[in-house]
Amino acid sequence: MPTNIPRSMMEAVARDAIDPLAPLRTRFAHPDPALIYLDGNSLGRMPVTTAALMQDVVAYQWGDRLIRAWNEGWFTLPERLGGKIAQLIGAQADEVIVADSTSVNLYKLATAALRARSGRTRILTDDGNFPSDLYILQGIAQEHGATLEVIASADGIHGSAGALMGALGGDVALLTLSHTLYKSAYTYDMAALTTAAHNAGALTLWDLSHAAGAVPVALNAAGADLAVGCCYKYLNGGPGAPAFLYVRRDLQTQLFNPIQGWMGQRNLFAFEGDYAPVDGLRRFLSGSPPVLSLAAIEPGVDLLLEAGMDALRAKSLALSEMLIGLWEERLAPLGYRLQSPRDGAWRGSHVGLGHDEAWRIDQALIHQAGVLPDFRQPDTIRLGIAPLYNSFADIYAAVAALQRVVEERLYTQYAAARPAVT
Amino acid sequence: MPTNIPRSMMEAVARDAIDPLAPLRTRFAHPDPALIYLDGNSLGRMPVTTAALMQDVVAYQWGDRLIRAWNEGWFTLPERLGGKIAQLIGAQADEVIVADSTSVNLYKLATAALRARSGRTRILTDDGNFPSDLYILQGIAQEHGATLEVIASADGIHGSAGALMGALGGDVALLTLSHTLYKSAYTYDMAALTTAAHNAGALTLWDLSHAAGAVPVALNAAGADLAVGCCYKYLNGGPGAPAFLYVRRDLQTQLFNPIQGWMGQRNLFAFEGDYAPVDGLRRFLSGSPPVLSLAAIEPGVDLLLEAGMDALRAKSLALSEMLIGLWEERLAPLGYRLQSPRDGAWRGSHVGLGHDEAWRIDQALIHQAGVLPDFRQPDTIRLGIAPLYNSFADIYAAVAALQRVVEERLYTQYAAARPAVT
Repeated sequence: MPTNIPRSMMEAVARDAIDPLAPLRTRFAHPDPALIYLDGNSLGRMPVTTAALMQDVVAYQWGDRLIRAWNEGWFTLPERLGGKIAQLIGAQADEVIVADSTSVNLYKLATAALRARSGRTRILTDDGNFPSDLYILQGIAQEHGATLEVIASADGIHGSAGALMGALGGDVALLTLSHTLYKSAYTYDMAALTTAAHNAGALTLWDLSHAAGAVPVALNAAGADLAVGCCYKYLNGGPGAPAFLYVRRDLQTQLFNPIQGWMGQRNLFAFEGDYAPVDGLRRFLSGSPPVLSLAAIEPGVDLLLEAGMDALRAKSLALSEMLIGLWEERLAPLGYRLQSPRDGAWRGSHVGLGHDEAWRIDQALIHQAGVLPDFRQPDTIRLGIAPLYNSFADIYAAVAALQRVVEERLYTQYAAARPAVT
Repeated sequence: MPTNIPRSMMEAVARDAIDPLAPLRTRFAHPDPALIYLDGNSLGRMPVTTAALMQDVVAYQWGDRLIRAWNEGWFTLPERLGGKIAQLIGAQADEVIVADSTSVNLYKLATAALRARSGRTRILTDDGNFPSDLYILQGIAQEHGATLEVIASADGIHGSAGALMGALGGDVALLTLSHTLYKSAYTYDMAALTTAAHNAGALTLWDLSHAAGAVPVALNAAGADLAVGCCYKYLNGGPGAPAFLYVRRDLQTQLFNPIQGWMGQRNLFAFEGDYAPVDGLRRFLSGSPPVLSLAAIEPGVDLLLEAGMDALRAKSLALSEMLIGLWEERLAPLGYRLQSPRDGAWRGSHVGLGHDEAWRIDQALIHQAGVLPDFRQPDTIRLGIAPLYNSFADIYAAVAALQRVVEERLYTQYAAARPAVT
């Protein structure tokens, strides 16, 4: 059991006082200073400067410059933002671009990969992948007469690396995985799996939604082919922010976007009748980007770059180690189960705690304890740790609340199951 | 030649004084009051209330409510906005939803239509359709082994209705057209073409981007099957605003979205492993919507609803008749050619004027005359008329500028051709 983790609020506050990243917390809006927000991996907090930026984009760029603003920055915003995100995920500036949603980008790149490996009929993934990714892949598999194989994790926590490697073969077109799993935070060895996929002649497509901005990602070093990811989680780009996609430079002219949009057209204002995509990454753009949401991505990315991924990772690990250490002492005896890797080397930046009463505990945390975590079916309380703004005091307070809600049975007044949303 | 059109700035101003829609002009931002903006069919002006709304969405909904805001309005925003847009285009509230871009929506609906008419191998369109739509359709045709037939207009202005009807046959899966053509503003008889397509067993898909909010559209009355459209032109929803799509109610459960996104999933927070779309229109959603850009759509739509489509159409016609009347008297002798239907019954809300020096005239209008029109290859100056905020004085000033730029040869200092954008 680690001895250097804060074990009182006073120790936690003392730890925050010497945290070099602590000043960055004030760069985010905290209209309710009492809220313990541990859902930054669902929707990141709002950077303070975003509000002023949006006023500039709305009132000046749109309201005053009108159509002229396209040539004054909007047209190149997708690659300019992509170039910044590239620095967070170990890619070159011209290998990342912002477009559409994660689902649409996954659709585009997975379809492109299947076409580039025509004749191969298997798509490999695991049961730790986002259901939203599985839905997209199911549709693509059906359309292309391919088989989607969803390899199950042996323990529901530590992914399926061994089984995936064993399943790779000459008929696999694509291996596609979440780099960091959305429930357990298990993080795959991207280089090892990419090498194995390449040895089998398959392409790889990584979903970085729970990794980008929270875990060091090294796409180029791993030799990764393709990736997509979300900008509204650890990147703090705003609700439903457009997503990013990555295509390794040498693949860019070999792959084709199935949604052949005019934003990817060569000399687009020639209005020529036949689609002829540009050579570079813009060919993976489709229609016009939602500029207001697009522009809002920048302040959050800038804050991550200012902090640096190494410092962010160090703080994230310190916070999750503290959380797990306190879980072991105080929460495990109350029926909380650790649903994330104990070894930090395999863990992303969130921690899943299971409990038989998880849904009701989640409700009590929100409504009685001022803690906002996330809930994932059937029994996971997911605690997202955003090292840009979460503090050691946040973690201490959250553990205290998790303890109190069960000890004092504060959860018993809530309905036993989450209502269906249809 | 009409006798009731304003023929001096004084007469134009007098006409504005009795225009019942004139007060709505002040509901839009005019930071440069001298600018004559005739590009509202590329990017509509910003409603004054949008700036305050965006501050609320950013600082309160995102900044303060954080993830809770999804259940406080964001999840239902796509159909709530769709229900309002439905009133502008003659559809039921549950037949229109906002999602993605026009290109992505066209891809989803055209693919769904081809699958619903499997065995049929022809897609019919015309050469007046957006190049961006043609690109999308080319990709779909190639993927599905179908043929895209682009029927040419006989005069480049009045569409291809007769030829399209003649080309319909038992092997046509889909007839897809822009309701109002982006260059000439010719507007198809939606009911007649839909009936002809249905008689041949084909589905219809209308692009309403240059019609919605400017021309009365009657999807239900015409029996139209499918439609898509843009929210950043006459709807004033902001740069690159998410687009809308329409699926006739009885078709909604028969058609399937190829981009099987979690936003269309039945009971989406069950996180079930298999895609099972909801029965209603949400099945045509894919990933998470860009909320900031999505929310910004509402003020412009509200202003259109407040004005009413009949009053908007009446004013739009009065403005375009004035423009064409003055063209005939003052601009035709200077080499300007009318590239839109002379008969208002077939004309949308913009007017195309051709000229051998169109590109250079366009530059002179922008840089020397304070007029902002649009240019379309190879020789069209496109004058968009947004009846919510364009005035009779705007039209008079624009004609005077078009006249002066040629009479005084102000255009000669500009390069002869538009530079390529790649």
